[in-house]
Amino acid sequence: MAHAHNKFQTRLASIAADMETVLAQVLPEPAGPQARIMEAMAYALLGGGKRLRPFLLIEAAHMLGAKNQGIWQAAAALECVHVYSLIHDDLPCMDDDDLRRGKLTLHKAYDEALAVLAGDALLTLAFEILAQDNVHPDAGIRLQLISDLAESSGTHGMIGGQVIDIYAGDGAQDEALITQLQALKTGALIHYSVLAGGRLAGATDFDLQNLSAYANALGLAFQIRDDILDVEGDSSVMGKRTNKDAGLGKATFVSIHGLEGAKQMAQDLGERAKSALKPYGENADILCSTVDFVLNRQK
Amino acid sequence: MAHAHNKFQTRLASIAADMETVLAQVLPEPAGPQARIMEAMAYALLGGGKRLRPFLLIEAAHMLGAKNQGIWQAAAALECVHVYSLIHDDLPCMDDDDLRRGKLTLHKAYDEALAVLAGDALLTLAFEILAQDNVHPDAGIRLQLISDLAESSGTHGMIGGQVIDIYAGDGAQDEALITQLQALKTGALIHYSVLAGGRLAGATDFDLQNLSAYANALGLAFQIRDDILDVEGDSSVMGKRTNKDAGLGKATFVSIHGLEGAKQMAQDLGERAKSALKPYGENADILCSTVDFVLNRQK
Repeated sequence: MAHAHNKFQTRLASIAADMETVLAQVLPEPAGPQARIMEAMAYALLGGGKRLRPFLLIEAAHMLGAKNQGIWQAAAALECVHVYSLIHDDLPCMDDDDLRRGKLTLHKAYDEALAVLAGDALLTLAFEILAQDNVHPDAGIRLQLISDLAESSGTHGMIGGQVIDIYAGDGAQDEALITQLQALKTGALIHYSVLAGGRLAGATDFDLQNLSAYANALGLAFQIRDDILDVEGDSSVMGKRTNKDAGLGKATFVSIHGLEGAKQMAQDLGERAKSALKPYGENADILCSTVDFVLNRQK
Repeated sequence: MAHAHNKFQTRLASIAADMETVLAQVLPEPAGPQARIMEAMAYALLGGGKRLRPFLLIEAAHMLGAKNQGIWQAAAALECVHVYSLIHDDLPCMDDDDLRRGKLTLHKAYDEALAVLAGDALLTLAFEILAQDNVHPDAGIRLQLISDLAESSGTHGMIGGQVIDIYAGDGAQDEALITQLQALKTGALIHYSVLAGGRLAGATDFDLQNLSAYANALGLAFQIRDDILDVEGDSSVMGKRTNKDAGLGKATFVSIHGLEGAKQMAQDLGERAKSALKPYGENADILCSTVDFVLNRQK
């Protein structure tokens, strides 16, 4: 168990390190009188983060036997979208956060205008990356990745979830609503991560169904763990504010089910995620360890 | 001349009206607890604007003989990107404008958070539209449109121009710099509009070169006309503030060349744009009339 844990941590760290190199390569060089936007994008995109979404994409592809370089390109596009969403969510008009991944948020390190524009530019870059033929030789697969990414990050995905989060207010005491909120706000992009890895590896419909069940359970477990950390976590470990949701009187899985109830839910979802990958035997070991990692993470 | 002018105005109005229908169709229906974001997108996207960029795309395609429905889908994606850029440029942290197309800007009609998110959602939607097979049966063409749109609206295009515009400050007294600024900020998307129409119509390299020369001259003429209107225009006609740039002490083509000098430059560029389309004879009539329209527009 400790061995499996160490092996997983080594793999996660190794992929994060390689991902850093790929991310640095996909960023535009700071050049021209607009160089500061490239610098701001690099500030936000590089040097931090677990790179969980790229990890999921890469490991889902590996599970099905794909190892080509295009996987890393697609993972970079995905991380661009994730980071753009963090930049915009941190803005004063939204969550108004000063810290992210232990350093100043982009609008604090630069300014609000550049934070809006750097987010826009990372979102734009993601689609530019996915359109390139080094992602996958089959144009149809690239278009599917583009279409799926747009859907999972748009109004029926991540943006929709953020809108619910901002405006639901005191109405969000309802478990059905917060489940939907999280399915959109964080779940949709996690789902995309896993499915995109599958598509790049030539997944069959059977594979896509299994990956989808895994991703949905994992995404919700991830969010419940976030709610637990918001109450139990140490802000110096997490590199961001804690007790935000409780402080705002927002409903969370913890406020509805209590700490122990929420932990049990997360465990049950974790089991469900693992059992969805039973057909893949030991090829699914890494994705199953990812479930334990998500359930036990401290940040 | 008056006849050609009327014919052009009829065509422009007709395409704008049809475009309105297509834009309403591509927008997501307001549904779910996030319905307000769909409403905000509709507020910003529908009911106004000359739809000049869609018009350019559609007429460039028509000039080369293409008339399929996919042209309208691509034009809708393009307009989503244009409108997203207006929403974000109007934000308090950027131009801080209250009026756009004669009505309240999105962050005034709703709020800042929703304006950021609605802009993000329109940008995302643009790529989702372009990935659909009703745009063009050839997947390679759709990927090219996606790639080109990302490039022309990213850090080496529209966003780059906006960054220069915001931060060049008093340094922007240099004609080379303001020409570059405008080539990126407005020129790149106008260039894309014309080229995308060409690509959808199966343009040859020769055609693309001609369209490119036309678009570059037209884009710069467009911007010079904007600078002229900023001084001469009537804000009640234009539906937005005038005298913004002069008020801010920003260099413009008018401040560098004077009003008459700027008008002459715009005329010369207009001639250059028209001559680039000589090979197409009367098939280019509409795009040539567009030049006159851009040079004479009052808003």
